[in-house]
Amino acid sequence: MKRALLLLVVAGFVFVSGFTWAATLEERVAALEEKAGSDSDFRAYWKDGLRLDSGDGAFKLQIGGRIYVDFAWMSSDDLAGFNDSVEFRTARFYTSGTIYDSFGFKLQVDLGGDKVTLKDAYVSFKDVPVVSNLKVGHFKEPFGLEELTSSKYVTFMERAIPNAFSPSRNAGVMVNSTALDKKMTWAAGVFRETSDGKDFESDDGYAVTGRITGTPWYEDEGKKVAHVGAAYSFRTNYKDMIKFEKGPEMNLAPKVVSTGDIDSDEQSRWGLEGAVVLGPLSFQGEYMHAAVDRNGGDDLDFGGYYLQASYFLTGECRPYDTKVATFSRVKPDKNFRDNGGAGAWEVAARYSNLNLSDDDIDGGELDNITVGVNWYMNPNMRVMLNYVAADVDNTTDGDADMAGVRFQVDF
Amino acid sequence: MKRALLLLVVAGFVFVSGFTWAATLEERVAALEEKAGSDSDFRAYWKDGLRLDSGDGAFKLQIGGRIYVDFAWMSSDDLAGFNDSVEFRTARFYTSGTIYDSFGFKLQVDLGGDKVTLKDAYVSFKDVPVVSNLKVGHFKEPFGLEELTSSKYVTFMERAIPNAFSPSRNAGVMVNSTALDKKMTWAAGVFRETSDGKDFESDDGYAVTGRITGTPWYEDEGKKVAHVGAAYSFRTNYKDMIKFEKGPEMNLAPKVVSTGDIDSDEQSRWGLEGAVVLGPLSFQGEYMHAAVDRNGGDDLDFGGYYLQASYFLTGECRPYDTKVATFSRVKPDKNFRDNGGAGAWEVAARYSNLNLSDDDIDGGELDNITVGVNWYMNPNMRVMLNYVAADVDNTTDGDADMAGVRFQVDF
Amino acid sequence: MKRALLLLVVAGFVFVSGFTWAATLEERVAALEEKAGSDSDFRAYWKDGLRLDSGDGAFKLQIGGRIYVDFAWMSSDDLAGFNDSVEFRTARFYTSGTIYDSFGFKLQVDLGGDKVTLKDAYVSFKDVPVVSNLKVGHFKEPFGLEELTSSKYVTFMERAIPNAFSPSRNAGVMVNSTALDKKMTWAAGVFRETSDGKDFESDDGYAVTGRITGTPWYEDEGKKVAHVGAAYSFRTNYKDMIKFEKGPEMNLAPKVVSTGDIDSDEQSRWGLEGAVVLGPLSFQGEYMHAAVDRNGGDDLDFGGYYLQASYFLTGECRPYDTKVATFSRVKPDKNFRDNGGAGAWEVAARYSNLNLSDDDIDGGELDNITVGVNWYMNPNMRVMLNYVAADVDNTTDGDADMAGVRFQVDF
Repeated sequence: MKRALLLLVVAGFVFVSGFTWAATLEERVAALEEKAGSDSDFRAYWKDGLRLDSGDGAFKLQIGGRIYVDFAWMSSDDLAGFNDSVEFRTARFYTSGTIYDSFGFKLQVDLGGDKVTLKDAYVSFKDVPVVSNLKVGHFKEPFGLEELTSSKYVTFMERAIPNAFSPSRNAGVMVNSTALDKKMTWAAGVFRETSDGKDFESDDGYAVTGRITGTPWYEDEGKKVAHVGAAYSFRTNYKDMIKFEKGPEMNLAPKVVSTGDIDSDEQSRWGLEGAVVLGPLSFQGEYMHAAVDRNGGDDLDFGGYYLQASYFLTGECRPYDTKVATFSRVKPDKNFRDNGGAGAWEVAARYSNLNLSDDDIDGGELDNITVGVNWYMNPNMRVMLNYVAADVDNTTDGDADMAGVRFQVDF
Repeated sequence: MKRALLLLVVAGFVFVSGFTWAATLEERVAALEEKAGSDSDFRAYWKDGLRLDSGDGAFKLQIGGRIYVDFAWMSSDDLAGFNDSVEFRTARFYTSGTIYDSFGFKLQVDLGGDKVTLKDAYVSFKDVPVVSNLKVGHFKEPFGLEELTSSKYVTFMERAIPNAFSPSRNAGVMVNSTALDKKMTWAAGVFRETSDGKDFESDDGYAVTGRITGTPWYEDEGKKVAHVGAAYSFRTNYKDMIKFEKGPEMNLAPKVVSTGDIDSDEQSRWGLEGAVVLGPLSFQGEYMHAAVDRNGGDDLDFGGYYLQASYFLTGECRPYDTKVATFSRVKPDKNFRDNGGAGAWEVAARYSNLNLSDDDIDGGELDNITVGVNWYMNPNMRVMLNYVAADVDNTTDGDADMAGVRFQVDF
Repeated sequence: MKRALLLLVVAGFVFVSGFTWAATLEERVAALEEKAGSDSDFRAYWKDGLRLDSGDGAFKLQIGGRIYVDFAWMSSDDLAGFNDSVEFRTARFYTSGTIYDSFGFKLQVDLGGDKVTLKDAYVSFKDVPVVSNLKVGHFKEPFGLEELTSSKYVTFMERAIPNAFSPSRNAGVMVNSTALDKKMTWAAGVFRETSDGKDFESDDGYAVTGRITGTPWYEDEGKKVAHVGAAYSFRTNYKDMIKFEKGPEMNLAPKVVSTGDIDSDEQSRWGLEGAVVLGPLSFQGEYMHAAVDRNGGDDLDFGGYYLQASYFLTGECRPYDTKVATFSRVKPDKNFRDNGGAGAWEVAARYSNLNLSDDDIDGGELDNITVGVNWYMNPNMRVMLNYVAADVDNTTDGDADMAGVRFQVDF
């Protein structure tokens, strides 16, 4: 009986203390639950930048920016304008997001060189029938593999010189989608030539631009990729005038080849793209062409191409994004936060050519050889070292040598 | 005895396992509590934009922006300057907040058109005795219902033409408050004419501006509202010069009426406002007047007015903010995230008149009829479609037709 | 037996209900744990601004800005250009952070006066062997105690006039560290004269600049401090030209002393600093000197100095940052959120002198007496009231009086 009594006391103690304790713990859990907020609360975390996602996934925001600090040393025996330089090639703030599940936006401005330049500024609509995605605003026309690859991810400090024919960003409306289980992408849009977001008034300056790509080979989660693509753009010229010009592949180098103003109502451009990824080794090349319908004169044809090879000494590979058919962020494979932080090391070389001479237009021909070394310290920072040898075949021939170093961070 | 022993074993098991489990759970709760942080930690969530509130409510921050992409088609048989256009009417970043319970700030810049324009930039003090709120910095003078309603919420793409008399933003000090249980608001301030935040040096260019409003009728949580208001501003003119000018209600349209520079030391302006909300139907109108004290000539009087009607096909109503006596954010009533996402649909029409001719000043008279359709896809996005017919009665008479579409997102 | 049965029932009840309850509670805790996220999730909180820190401390971000609204009244009987003025002395957005433990960045732009000016824009590397910190980008050269102290924390509305010799921000590479248990700091860098982040092209305009400081006395957690320092800079001049000029200590005052352009290949500058903190009382002074190596003429020497005293009526003291040897944020000691929010009150006076005349260069001599009252309403806001009396000894002598008020918020 005493034992039963003892047992009863023990059981009672368990009962009472357990529930007292339980009540306290429950209160603490309830307090935590209140703090934890609802499904619409944001979770903030770092994934290649600051991200905020709501618990239910309906809202996703990103806030960040990027800085490229460039130092360059340039010299030429026979050409003017090649000086040493330092510049903030890019200094951008941006915010982008998805709201209410299927509506998107992005606002991005560049503040380098003490001026403000509107870059991406658009609203987008996802899950649109047939076309998947619809974008309205200021963004890149779908033309050119290297142009459409963010400057954060391109292999050299500057894009190759045939990029003189890439329309880059203009104001317009675009639809795009993938097909064949992401083995294909297509994009098409109507644009107005707004020149970096400035107000634009004219009855001319319209463009229709489209791009189609295929990925016939995609294996090992992107370690083996073959990419092919083609783009076309038909354009009416603002003020019946068109000019193509370009300098070597170092940003503040002078524009050594130029067609000058050409009297023309309309023009068309086309481009062909190819790329192969074989693990750490990759190749990429493009050809671009502009056919100018000249007023009072023969029609004109200009063209350019480049071919590049890149190799990661540390074994990473250039990641290919099947949704938009461009290359994306290189991330050091190794644990770059330990072991001395070696990060990823890439060596690369490129040959490029741009010919702006045709008929009586003697715009000149430019050849560039660029070699580069990239050090990716972490997924958000890299140091780039480029040497460029330029050969100009113009009314005055000449050579120029350029060396540049870039410190890049995006966040 | 065996049973008792069994019971003891069972009770012991309950005791031991319970407490073992309890210790583990308690540890997990403690870990969570540590993570949950203190009352001063921010909770991030979406409410018409990204918001961060501290647990104790003393700190509240907002970070966001807005983009308006405008496409316009304009034509006139007899007037120059009506071209097709595309522009980023507005591309803004902002951050605002309340800190330490009763101190506020806002910094907002517009980056449209590749230039930077300081918009709101002020510090504010809440809970100030007598006057409730005190603001110092760059913000809108208290003048005009439509001017004081954010462009995010106005019914048409552009404000009505009498807005030529609204001072908009200048640098100054303002106090404001509500009275009679929010049935009244008043605001008064002293300002300097800084023209969009530029540095300003002068011994002239001061203004004293005040506004008073009443809401005699406010029922059904704002579904039935009557608003009346009046504003007055006395102003000394920078460099003894004043000019009023305006174009039709499409942003890049040319300024077809203008007084030209008038030699004047000072002027006064006054405005009358009225609005009625009857559920989905609403009416709004204003009259504005400028009385210019001319040097070496008769004094001058200019005026303008507009009247508009709006109707929500989908049943929403224009929300009225009793604290500042302006209209605020339209939110689709229906579950816009399901059911095909119909959102809210509004149709509206406006007639407006601006007369800038008096005495020997032949600035011209402008009449505008604007009809519009607005589609509010979600609380943060809308597409606006406006048609404007303008009639100019000037030294050269003329008509112009304008159609515009705006894609708007604010976040 | 019945009792035993009862006991068994009771124990069974405890067992079952306890575990049922436990299961529920455990589920709730598990749900919370899922929400609480991983160690890489950010915790957002306010500490003199919005901060986001990841749980593991590897990522730390700050997003914010600052606004200074200045109103000034200036007059002079004998000198031109002293007008009343209002300006947004500073209107900045910034974001900075540390990522992957040891990599840093900062991007900061000023948007005052409707123009954009790149301020800090750099990447930094922490835990670098020997030198501790390495910075690359656009930031302040290590020269001058007051210049290196943020304008958020300096005692008067404007820095003292000898600041004409401070190089401020340029593009370059700098290393810095502390020594002797933070009793010493040193910094050294190579820079190019980029003038507020603009693109810069030239073969000249290089500078080598270094600073060394000591804190022989540091007691009572910084309530008693003695600081001494020296800085030196050797500079080649852009376009073989150098000019020093300055106005009195009110921002929009005219530049009343100026050397004009001096033909010179190179120059050197040096500065001496001293400061003493004795609780609420503090003293600070600097002497700066520029030695210009003139082409085709005698070498030139210019100099300037200031001495200031500040006293906190409410007992706070100016906080000294031993890591970078500058002054930092003043925080009201008293509970400024209650008791009428008296905040911190500081009175201060300064005498400063700048002599830009030497040899045949008659740049003029400027003396300033400035008295000021600062009200720190909370750690992030202050109102400054300054009176400046300027005496100019130039080709035309003259006096000027200036009064200014600043509303400052940083967040």
